[in-house]
Amino acid sequence: MKEMSKEISSKSNHHIKLAKSLLNRKSREKEQLFVVEGVRLVEEAIMAEIKIRFALYSDKLAASQRGQQLLKTFDQKGVDVFWVEEKLFRELSDTENPQGIFAVGEFMQRDLSCLILKENSMLLLIDGVQDPGNLGTMIRTACAAGAAGVLLTKGTVDLFNPKVIRASMGTIFQIPVISTESNERFLSYFQKNKIQVLVADAKGEKLYYQTETQGPVVWVLGNEANGPRDFFLDHADEIVRIPLLGKAESLNVAVAAGILLFDHMRRRQEKPILVN
Amino acid sequence: MKEMSKEISSKSNHHIKLAKSLLNRKSREKEQLFVVEGVRLVEEAIMAEIKIRFALYSDKLAASQRGQQLLKTFDQKGVDVFWVEEKLFRELSDTENPQGIFAVGEFMQRDLSCLILKENSMLLLIDGVQDPGNLGTMIRTACAAGAAGVLLTKGTVDLFNPKVIRASMGTIFQIPVISTESNERFLSYFQKNKIQVLVADAKGEKLYYQTETQGPVVWVLGNEANGPRDFFLDHADEIVRIPLLGKAESLNVAVAAGILLFDHMRRRQEKPILVN
Repeated sequence: MKEMSKEISSKSNHHIKLAKSLLNRKSREKEQLFVVEGVRLVEEAIMAEIKIRFALYSDKLAASQRGQQLLKTFDQKGVDVFWVEEKLFRELSDTENPQGIFAVGEFMQRDLSCLILKENSMLLLIDGVQDPGNLGTMIRTACAAGAAGVLLTKGTVDLFNPKVIRASMGTIFQIPVISTESNERFLSYFQKNKIQVLVADAKGEKLYYQTETQGPVVWVLGNEANGPRDFFLDHADEIVRIPLLGKAESLNVAVAAGILLFDHMRRRQEKPILVN
Repeated sequence: MKEMSKEISSKSNHHIKLAKSLLNRKSREKEQLFVVEGVRLVEEAIMAEIKIRFALYSDKLAASQRGQQLLKTFDQKGVDVFWVEEKLFRELSDTENPQGIFAVGEFMQRDLSCLILKENSMLLLIDGVQDPGNLGTMIRTACAAGAAGVLLTKGTVDLFNPKVIRASMGTIFQIPVISTESNERFLSYFQKNKIQVLVADAKGEKLYYQTETQGPVVWVLGNEANGPRDFFLDHADEIVRIPLLGKAESLNVAVAAGILLFDHMRRRQEKPILVN
């Protein structure tokens, strides 16, 4: 049933309450909904055909041409849109300078069957990363490196955390990110598809640029403080490290992912493999 | 003059007021002082011989063995240390889970004369990066790659921002970071020392791993949204780009720095140059 009024001025309105609750992981998982905030990210979500349940906006959005365009798009797509007072909007927002747009989308239901593998595909498996900024940046990096997908183990920060979405710059809508499978299911997928498992670890003997791979690979990176867990170390085809020259004890995990994926891409491009 | 009492319980105490004011860039620059928060970072600062003016601590620090050790170190070094109530400490803190230690240090006075250049040295020049997490991560990355130093142009986020120090994981104390020079002074230093200027830009024609360099180099990375400014583009020996394969429009600037510096390190190691 469509709402008669398209204005919301009360905190107790159920759309407001729902949107607010979705800042919390448990509520997101219960509702299978998440929030996207900001003009550009909402545009990306629409382009990626994310199903948008409803949107909330304030005068700030309506004041810009791009915002007006977005409202028109919602209208064309039949998305319920509600106007919210600026002050109330600010209370909902997860950002310091809200742009006045908040869309509630349905979880993307992605599993391993979404992956399209080629002879030279790369995957990134993220095992237990805790910082949402790091996870979002890793997804952005994997997308830029042309990875076929990103796999998240249980115990990794929630994909639908607003900070992850923001740091990903919307790339979570552009590359398959799979967070619903068990480690065992990931492993049997790798085995079935002859995907080599390359685990990055400070204790690795080989240097990352000395791996010799053929066919698809998955790069495994672990938690910021503890690295990857035993499960993937035990099942690695190679355990490799990034040599550190200076006094720094470690690298940021997203920077490490960038070094590994882009070096792999470089080597694949220097020795191109023809694919159909 | 040493304080008679070593306990502070009032917000109006001048040490508290000073420490609090140092969360602000202008005050830091006026006083030439900055704050370091957290056990590990303070330990790093002490090891790096940063001059510590005074320290504030709460019961939380005193409760841990490592904290007790830190207090002993302060005592040995004759640093004034003040106990602060937990609640007051939390108000001062820039972090969500304060560890109960807050040291006020004097600015490191570093200029180009601090750099020690060798035949295969790398420098990182950061031109206008705005996010403190990005700047800190870039310094950490440069340190791990064995760079000889990091240069910051005017208009880059303040080196002594607490979030920069935290993201750097203390590496700002381990690698020379120079933020007091003009672009012209940087450039004349490069010219005098035959340092090749390699600028990363999305519009670069050459790929980053195809540069052919001999001798020391400086990698220039620019602002998150706008890239490097014309000054360095105009004076570049090479303008290079990182090829992006996926739909992502760009990389995080700290990830880009990691890819560039580590690839350079790799090539230097594959073709080693003997240095004295």
